[in-house]
Amino acid sequence: MKKVQPRTLPGFMELLPNEQIVFNDIKEKIQKSYERFGFLPLDTPIIEDAEVLLAKAGGETEKQIYRFNKGENDLALRFDLTVPLAKYVSEYYGELSFPFKRYQIGKVYRGEKAQAGRYREFYQCDVDIIGDGELSIIHDAEIPSIIYTTFKELGFEKFTIHINNRKILNGIFDEIGSTDKSTDILRIIDKIEKIGAEKVQEELTELGIAKNEIETIMNFIKISGTNTEKIETLRQLGIKSEIFNTGLNELEQVTKLIKVCGVPEKNFEIDLTIARGLDYYTGTVYETFLDDYKKLGSVCSGGRYENLAEYYTDKRLPGVGISIGLTRFFYQARKEGLIKSEKTSISKVLVLPMTDNLEKCMEIASKLRNAKINTEIYLEDKKIKSKFKYADKLNIPFAVVIGDDEIANDKVTLKNMTTGEQETLPIEEVINRILIEE
Amino acid sequence: MKKVQPRTLPGFMELLPNEQIVFNDIKEKIQKSYERFGFLPLDTPIIEDAEVLLAKAGGETEKQIYRFNKGENDLALRFDLTVPLAKYVSEYYGELSFPFKRYQIGKVYRGEKAQAGRYREFYQCDVDIIGDGELSIIHDAEIPSIIYTTFKELGFEKFTIHINNRKILNGIFDEIGSTDKSTDILRIIDKIEKIGAEKVQEELTELGIAKNEIETIMNFIKISGTNTEKIETLRQLGIKSEIFNTGLNELEQVTKLIKVCGVPEKNFEIDLTIARGLDYYTGTVYETFLDDYKKLGSVCSGGRYENLAEYYTDKRLPGVGISIGLTRFFYQARKEGLIKSEKTSISKVLVLPMTDNLEKCMEIASKLRNAKINTEIYLEDKKIKSKFKYADKLNIPFAVVIGDDEIANDKVTLKNMTTGEQETLPIEEVINRILIEE
Repeated sequence: MKKVQPRTLPGFMELLPNEQIVFNDIKEKIQKSYERFGFLPLDTPIIEDAEVLLAKAGGETEKQIYRFNKGENDLALRFDLTVPLAKYVSEYYGELSFPFKRYQIGKVYRGEKAQAGRYREFYQCDVDIIGDGELSIIHDAEIPSIIYTTFKELGFEKFTIHINNRKILNGIFDEIGSTDKSTDILRIIDKIEKIGAEKVQEELTELGIAKNEIETIMNFIKISGTNTEKIETLRQLGIKSEIFNTGLNELEQVTKLIKVCGVPEKNFEIDLTIARGLDYYTGTVYETFLDDYKKLGSVCSGGRYENLAEYYTDKRLPGVGISIGLTRFFYQARKEGLIKSEKTSISKVLVLPMTDNLEKCMEIASKLRNAKINTEIYLEDKKIKSKFKYADKLNIPFAVVIGDDEIANDKVTLKNMTTGEQETLPIEEVINRILIEE
Repeated sequence: MKKVQPRTLPGFMELLPNEQIVFNDIKEKIQKSYERFGFLPLDTPIIEDAEVLLAKAGGETEKQIYRFNKGENDLALRFDLTVPLAKYVSEYYGELSFPFKRYQIGKVYRGEKAQAGRYREFYQCDVDIIGDGELSIIHDAEIPSIIYTTFKELGFEKFTIHINNRKILNGIFDEIGSTDKSTDILRIIDKIEKIGAEKVQEELTELGIAKNEIETIMNFIKISGTNTEKIETLRQLGIKSEIFNTGLNELEQVTKLIKVCGVPEKNFEIDLTIARGLDYYTGTVYETFLDDYKKLGSVCSGGRYENLAEYYTDKRLPGVGISIGLTRFFYQARKEGLIKSEKTSISKVLVLPMTDNLEKCMEIASKLRNAKINTEIYLEDKKIKSKFKYADKLNIPFAVVIGDDEIANDKVTLKNMTTGEQETLPIEEVINRILIEE
């Protein structure tokens, strides 16, 4: 028979089982953290009607979209979880309770140029809180505590949540009279970590911003000090713009409340350089950096938007949310050796029958499983060495060996695969020992 | 702004949060059951190279496939989890340990005709055990214990796993000299539950099977009695066909071992009418029926195949596996009122601040979360009635009310939302009470 070369498309992450176990462990920890704050699960389709999905999209995103026809239908694969959320909230508005807090963890699709660390299929892990007409700013302060809890749960200690407020930036442009170019200016400022201050100035000049205006902008984004000092310096700029002062008040309030929400001061800071390129953010914005691995870029970002679903509904639906790009994060963190998952196997126990009395072996496996211990039984007719090698390769921590001697004494032999120690014990004792280890 | 009608494509399941909670609970129980037996997780891409995905497919399946171009690539969405498994095992053969036991729970895509209960995007929950060159038949007997454990875990008691062996059927055709038509005959027999014996005879006649041969077939599938009696009757047919006798020996062995694997006799039976239409099954086949809801069809099916990946590799990779079509099952079971999930909310507690001391409220929410209790804090400025209504609509079982009086006494008011009872207690006591309830 002619063979087809088995292969996986470039840009699609496919893991070996031992890596998948770790990936799933991380995904589950993110999910548990989100649920800890009471977010409800959603699972919207991956395929949507192209007209619905692309109601708002444009530019780069549209080019990247997987769009195709099936019969007479013009279909597209979702490229994020925010547009499906907007659709969902508009579609089921009458049946939801507000504030509507939902999380969604799922794959999204973008036909990016294939290169290391860039994925065409990747997981996003989103939480959003959507208000009906209005949404208290306290939620803006709750978001960092969700980021904090999640990254602590993932085993990280040294990370900083950067916050800013888009109104402050817009207010500055208002003041210098460049409101029409604000989106472009924000996009340039956003790159300062990557390209440096000089290049930012250059690009602003190219954009046609006057020298003294660039100076105002550069002075503004250079403001340093503690959070309180930054707020103080901003106040002292004496900017009249109403939007600026609204933003400043919001930032001050959010900064205070973040502490109240239990995030230690060392884990968050005001960062006037972050803008988040996306034009739907209108207030607080977030980025999160691992202190010792800033080059990874932001590992969790988001912000406040005034109107989630204006393309679908007249209802005003303000919201605030964040997203973790899990696939890229996993790729990068693994490369840097940052992933310390204690979970390395599915099975806790490999039962090794060394007898023809399979019934007894199955009975023992059942007892282990009934005690909620993941248990595999080796059923192939192989040499004992191969059987232990299988346990080793799969990182299974315990082997339970059952021979005729053990059965005669109503015991089993427990072998600790890490230390090599072994001991013959009643099964109940084995179960206790394994449960204690957990 | 012109609005786009927010809508979800027909044939795509999208649930309200309270339904999604139940769906996820079922999905998680299936996953936990599969892991209990030591199956390793896989998460292959949803998009594959069309040439790879369709190496084997043909007929009905190919017509249903979502296939499209992106740039110069000919792509397709997976239509099951078996083909991706075949690809995966061939691609990573050298890095896997055999027998390779994997589970995969994920969405698959088929452009079926839209009708109630038929989905174009649906979850499959698969387990397979793949051998390298050979795979002990004991695994065929282990599979029913996985089905049994899973459906018990889902809260079902009255269900029956039907088993048969394709070799027996093939042996019969061998005997009557209709081997070339065996696939067609199997497909017709497979429909007997749906269309009845008479219609089966009709269709066999149309196929050109002689009257006496039809009689042999009908007599064969009518064999009744206990499992032991059925085996006995089959022996007494005196059929010489080697394949028939191999199949009969396998079926006898598997039937005995199923008991050894701990599945009660009332939960499985030999059923000579099941054939599983798919032509890659070569030995044991399984279907599972809910005793009181046979009309739902098989809720979990599968079987043994001699060669998983012949389209990709020269390695002989026999396997045995099963699949639950979760989306369809959920749809049907919900319609019949068969779903009894104890999980109805994500949050256990809704914290209701009735004070300006938000810090204290956040502190209490953190204490609850640190005790692994999912806790939401209501942050909108609404009337107390609205706040309780929110808890009610989301089925949150407890409210923790914090007012200035409570803070002064270092206590909180715990309200049981089901009984309406409320009591003022220290937070530690509240935590204990809630943990005991679980």
